[in-house]
Parts: sequence; structure tokens; C-alpha cells
Amino acid sequence: MEKVSIEEMVSIDEQLAYLKKGLADLIQEDDLRERLIQAGKSGRQLRVKAGFDPTAPDLHLGHTVLLRKMKHFQDLGHRVIFLIGDNTGLIGDPTGRNTTRPPMTREEIDRNAETYKTQVFKILDPAKTEVRFNSEWLEPLRFADIIRLCSKYTVAQIMERDDFTKRHKEGIPISMHELLYPLAQGYDSVMLECDVEMGGTDQRFNLLVGRELQRDAGQAPQIVATVPLLEGTDGVDKMSKSKGNYIGITEPPKVIFRKVMGISDTLMWRYWELLTDKSIAEIAAMKTEDPMPVKMRLARQIVADFHSPAAADQAQADFDREVREGREPDDIETVTVPPEAGTSLPKILVAASLVDSRTDAERKIKAGAVEIDGVKHTEFSLSVTRPMVVRVGKKWKRIVP
Amino acid sequence: MEKVSIEEMVSIDEQLAYLKKGLADLIQEDDLRERLIQAGKSGRQLRVKAGFDPTAPDLHLGHTVLLRKMKHFQDLGHRVIFLIGDNTGLIGDPTGRNTTRPPMTREEIDRNAETYKTQVFKILDPAKTEVRFNSEWLEPLRFADIIRLCSKYTVAQIMERDDFTKRHKEGIPISMHELLYPLAQGYDSVMLECDVEMGGTDQRFNLLVGRELQRDAGQAPQIVATVPLLEGTDGVDKMSKSKGNYIGITEPPKVIFRKVMGISDTLMWRYWELLTDKSIAEIAAMKTEDPMPVKMRLARQIVADFHSPAAADQAQADFDREVREGREPDDIETVTVPPEAGTSLPKILVAASLVDSRTDAERKIKAGAVEIDGVKHTEFSLSVTRPMVVRVGKKWKRIVP
Repeated sequence: MEKVSIEEMVSIDEQLAYLKKGLADLIQEDDLRERLIQAGKSGRQLRVKAGFDPTAPDLHLGHTVLLRKMKHFQDLGHRVIFLIGDNTGLIGDPTGRNTTRPPMTREEIDRNAETYKTQVFKILDPAKTEVRFNSEWLEPLRFADIIRLCSKYTVAQIMERDDFTKRHKEGIPISMHELLYPLAQGYDSVMLECDVEMGGTDQRFNLLVGRELQRDAGQAPQIVATVPLLEGTDGVDKMSKSKGNYIGITEPPKVIFRKVMGISDTLMWRYWELLTDKSIAEIAAMKTEDPMPVKMRLARQIVADFHSPAAADQAQADFDREVREGREPDDIETVTVPPEAGTSLPKILVAASLVDSRTDAERKIKAGAVEIDGVKHTEFSLSVTRPMVVRVGKKWKRIVP
Repeated sequence: MEKVSIEEMVSIDEQLAYLKKGLADLIQEDDLRERLIQAGKSGRQLRVKAGFDPTAPDLHLGHTVLLRKMKHFQDLGHRVIFLIGDNTGLIGDPTGRNTTRPPMTREEIDRNAETYKTQVFKILDPAKTEVRFNSEWLEPLRFADIIRLCSKYTVAQIMERDDFTKRHKEGIPISMHELLYPLAQGYDSVMLECDVEMGGTDQRFNLLVGRELQRDAGQAPQIVATVPLLEGTDGVDKMSKSKGNYIGITEPPKVIFRKVMGISDTLMWRYWELLTDKSIAEIAAMKTEDPMPVKMRLARQIVADFHSPAAADQAQADFDREVREGREPDDIETVTVPPEAGTSLPKILVAASLVDSRTDAERKIKAGAVEIDGVKHTEFSLSVTRPMVVRVGKKWKRIVP
């Protein structure tokens, strides 16, 4: 993990520039400046909240954009509240239509919270982090309290939320309970007396509700800061597991390293901005260098963040040996995956003439004889979302979508 | 109070006709017929709910239309649930803008409930009435329960309510908490396992919500029966205290009698239909008679309902003596109230030349020397909504709006 010395950037302008880097929205910058000044004078830590689902976490780099921005507040001495929205998790799918979303038990939620901690404390400083659950104040609410909470907002105000407006126009049903979530989230900010709330750009509306409810409760309205959605390794869609364009933070060093090396030079600058603590000026300076070593530094940095500097060394050595030092033939053939192969790895291997038959392919996959980008792959499915190097025994092919 | 003998109308058709008299809506008649048949066979009482505000009751005849319809179910052996919506009363005006609606205390609500009983048991049979408070099941609801409740309805469904649609179109704000009330009311029906819910026509939507929530809870959806709004003594606007066109059920016999005698012949038939147990056939038969004695029977009937047959006798005797037997001069002069007098009784008396000055008027009002329609009037305000006979000492005038 990179270390940032607060002593090096005492000026408010420098603090602001550090916090603003990569943000999508900041409401309001002047207000943040004022609170940073006040915090500097009084020594009071700002309280910076972000909310997370209570479902089993399996974070990828897309999620770390927000966590890293929370870390930036910690770097400047402030306090982060990692809020787990457990109350809604206990409900499951309230419509009862989605049986894949049964209510979670207290034990499951607590277990997930522990998993969260092991993952997010790779970025956040535990000493400056409060892990809270919103059931703490939502559970004791009574009907009368909820009526009072709801009375602070009009239907028109809630329906202004982009996705509600869109669904309303398109006649896609909006269930009444969905309208309560933004209010509950705003109430969280009142109860936690937040100075700042952060989230993805899709959370912008919900974060603004917190401002209104805090104002109503006589608190200074929180500053709202949103981070952009991170593009996946394909550089096109937002990073997500289902798209197969993700880099999971618990993936092996070798895999993370290879995946980072596979992104485009253009996307690399975006990753430097959103996935590291480097300043805009430092990133600008790197743009004058040869991109390949810069990308390798990025890959090392990311592996070091989620594993260790030693693991980064090893991942780089593996990469050099396997990919750059000729283990992968220079005259490697490129094969386009035929559409009918879909995500069936046996079919892909047959199409690429790396195996004799699908049976042969399945046997070799099971036996661990198939490597994708230098990593053993033992599953029968593979999403080819970018160029990948496939090895089966001594045969090598580059496959492209 | 009139007595209705159930033995006299055993047939389902007769029962239905009795219950349907005067209803604005009945959803669904077939369903009611079926339940009446089943109730007859099994001896099970139908559960018939109507909800009331927990505010201080001061009922007028407009409110009794609903109570009388509840009584009709009791006449047929069924059980009435007089539901007091105390949970919302405990909230007051949740927006905090209306300071005239502070939260009520438990003591106030209980005191109001007692007042309700003394008033409504003039019509309802206490032995077949349950008085319930919805705090019984709303108070224990948790946030998660309310989310679940709300998930049963979509925003579009709730916004279909006439007044919501209208306000939405006109850009008049609808507060979020208002959307919760119909759901809470529907939930009351689930908890009470209602067979029938009744209310004014303005309650139609809320009563229908109960059907949906009951269906969702695996209950047979309640039958919805609405009663029309009763026109006030002016025959134009709906009866209300603020319009001054009301007949309060706790008013003195003499006042009730006079006010009924002051309504139009047309309105009288409406009152027979909505304020008595007389059947459509009986009312039709009366239409062949001279209207004045029929109106007098109506006045007697209403006084007897809310006071006693003896009080009705006395009220009629007073009326005969004071109005019909010449205490009021035959050549009484009619004076139109000038607009600038408004509701100021002193100004009206000056305009009618019944006093020398406003000071004179105020002194005489305080001294109890002013009678309106034969009843002493000691307040300085008077809404002249219909012709009234005013006496100050030996001077008589008929004043008209």
C-alpha cells in the first residue's frame, strides 16, 4: 500500500486537489473547503460515510475506486464510516417474487461483515474506520417515526430520481417500498451526523436526500461526493463479474498482473487515476514515458495493494519469464472464437485446434493441462472478452473475441 | 330509536335491499349476497369495519349516515368494528407545519373514545360493537414490516387515487407519508379479518386497498360499501360545521326540531332515506301525503333518536306554540342580511332595526334577550345560511341570507 504523508500537503488547496481527483460529483466544493479549514483548526475529524450491501462481498477493482477515495480522507486524518445496510438485508425480497433473495440471517450478515473487513482493510486504515450497521437505528423505528420521516419528502421529489422517472415514463412498475430506501439512507446520515457521504454516480440522488433530512434535523447538510463507475478490462462496459471484464481483489497475484497488462494504454491512465494515490501531476508526467514499463508499474502497484510487494515481484518475474522471455512463441497464431462456441471452453479449444475433440478438451481441462494467460484454468466455461493466450501442453494460441 | 325486527325480513333479497338502501358504492353485491347466505347457514357474524379519526368527536347528522348503515348490519345480527385510528393521531401533523395539529396524548385519545361511545351508541348497539384502536397492530410494526407492507403496492396503483391524481396533475405537493395511510388502512382490514369495510365515497380507494392486501394475505377480499355525503340544511353543500349548515346530534331537541323543519321538501326525502331505517317502499308511500306533517314526523324521529321520544314531544309542542300558534307574528317582516354584516350578529341586528346600536345589540345578546328560531343565542357570531326568525324582546324579524 502506498503511504501518503499528510505533512507534505498541508495547504487546503493541496488537500482539496487530493480529494477531488477522479470524483464525478462534488456538492459543494466550497463547503468541503470550509469544513477542511474548520477541521484543521479544531482538530475535529470529518465523518465520511459510504454504505454497502450486506450480501457476500467479493470485491473487484471497480469497488475499490470508492474505497480508495475513502482512504484519501483517512490520509488527511479523517474518519470513515463503513456502513453495512443490514436492515434491508434481513428482509430479503419483500415482494416475495424473487426466491433467490431470501432474508439473510444475523449470522450470515455478521459473517459477510467479517469478510468485508478482511477485504476493505487492504485499502482502509482500521484505526480510522467505524464499521456500523443501520439496523442500529432503523430497527427501533416505529410506524409513527416512519410517517414522520416520510413527511419530510414529497412524492414529486422522490420521483425525480433518474431511474424512477424513467421507469414511470416507461410504465415499468415501481413498488412503494422502493421509495422508502432513499429516505432510510438519508436518515442514516442524520443518525451518523455525517460530514460527507460518498457513493457511485448512481447513488447521487440518494446522497442528496441525506442533505435535506439533515437540514430538517438542524444539522449542516452533508457534502456529497460521487465516484465514477470503473470501466472493465475491455475498456467498454463497467467492470462487473457477470461481464467477465473484472479484476477481483482476491484473485492470485499472477492473474491480477496478467489482467492489468492486458488493458489498453488508454484505459491504463484511467486506472492510474482511479486505482492509485498518484496525483494528476504525477500521472501527467508518466504520460511522456514508454507505456509498457508504466503499465507494468501499475500492475505491480495493484498486486502489491491486495497481496504484497513480494507477491508483485513474483508476479512480474512470472510474467517476464512466461510471456516476455519466449516461453510464449513469438510467432503465436491468433484465432477468433467462433460465435457458436460461446463460453464453452472445450468448444473454443476445438475451434482453435488445441485439442483433438471435446472429450479430449474436457479431460485436459480437468487434468489442469490448460492455462489461460499463464494461469491454470479448470472450469469448462470461459468468457473471451479480450485477447487471451491459451496453452494446452506445448501448443500455444492467442484467442480473440 | 326505531326497532327493526329481523324476523320480518328473513329472505336474502330483503336483507340485501335493506343494506343497499342509500349506498353510493357496493363492491361486490354478489359477494355480499354469498356471505349473507353463508352467515345465515353457519350463524357466523359478518365483521363490518368503519374507521374514525381520534380527534374530539362532535357528530352531526352527516356522520350518522355511516353509523346508521353500520346499524343496519347489526339489525341483521352482524358485528360492527368501530375502529379508532389512534396511531396517526399520536403523530399530530408529521410535517410540523400545522401547529394546530399537535400530537394527541393517550389520555386525550381515550377521553375522545369515551365521547365517541356516548354519541355513537345512540345509533349502534353496544352489544354488537367492538371498539378497537389500530395502534394495537400498527405500533409493533418495524421498518422491515413496513417495507414488506409497501412492497405489496406500486406507486402507480397508489397514485390512481382520485385526489392524488388531481394534485399530481396540478402540481400540488403530495407528501410521501400520505401514501402510507391507505396501506395502513388496508392493513387494518387484514388484522381485523373484515368481511365488509364502509366509509364515505371519498374513502373508496382506501377501502379497495384493503381488498388487495387481504387477497395477498390469503383472506377473502372484504366487501366495500360507501355511503354518500349528506347535504346540509341548505340542500347545497355537504353538511359541515364550518359551513354552518349542520345539525349536531348533541344540539338541544328544540334546535334539532327547528333545523329539520327548515329544510326543503326535496331534501326531506333524502334525509328520510339516509337518516332513518325506513325502506324505499315506505318512503315512496309517504310522498303521496301532505309534506308538512311528514317533515314534522322526520323532525320528531331525529329528535327521538338522539334524545328521547319525550323530548320529541316537547320539541314539537314548543314548535307548535312558538311558530305555528302565533307567538311569531303573522305579518313578520323579512330582512335580507347586508353583505357587510357578515356573521356579526350585532351588525345583523342593527341592519334589521331590532336594536338601536351595536352596543345595544351586544348588551342584549349577553343578557340572553336574543332568540334565533326560538332558541336563546348568546354568541356574537351567526351564520345566516337559511331563513331564520329572530326575536329581540317584543320585536320579531325574519332574516334571510
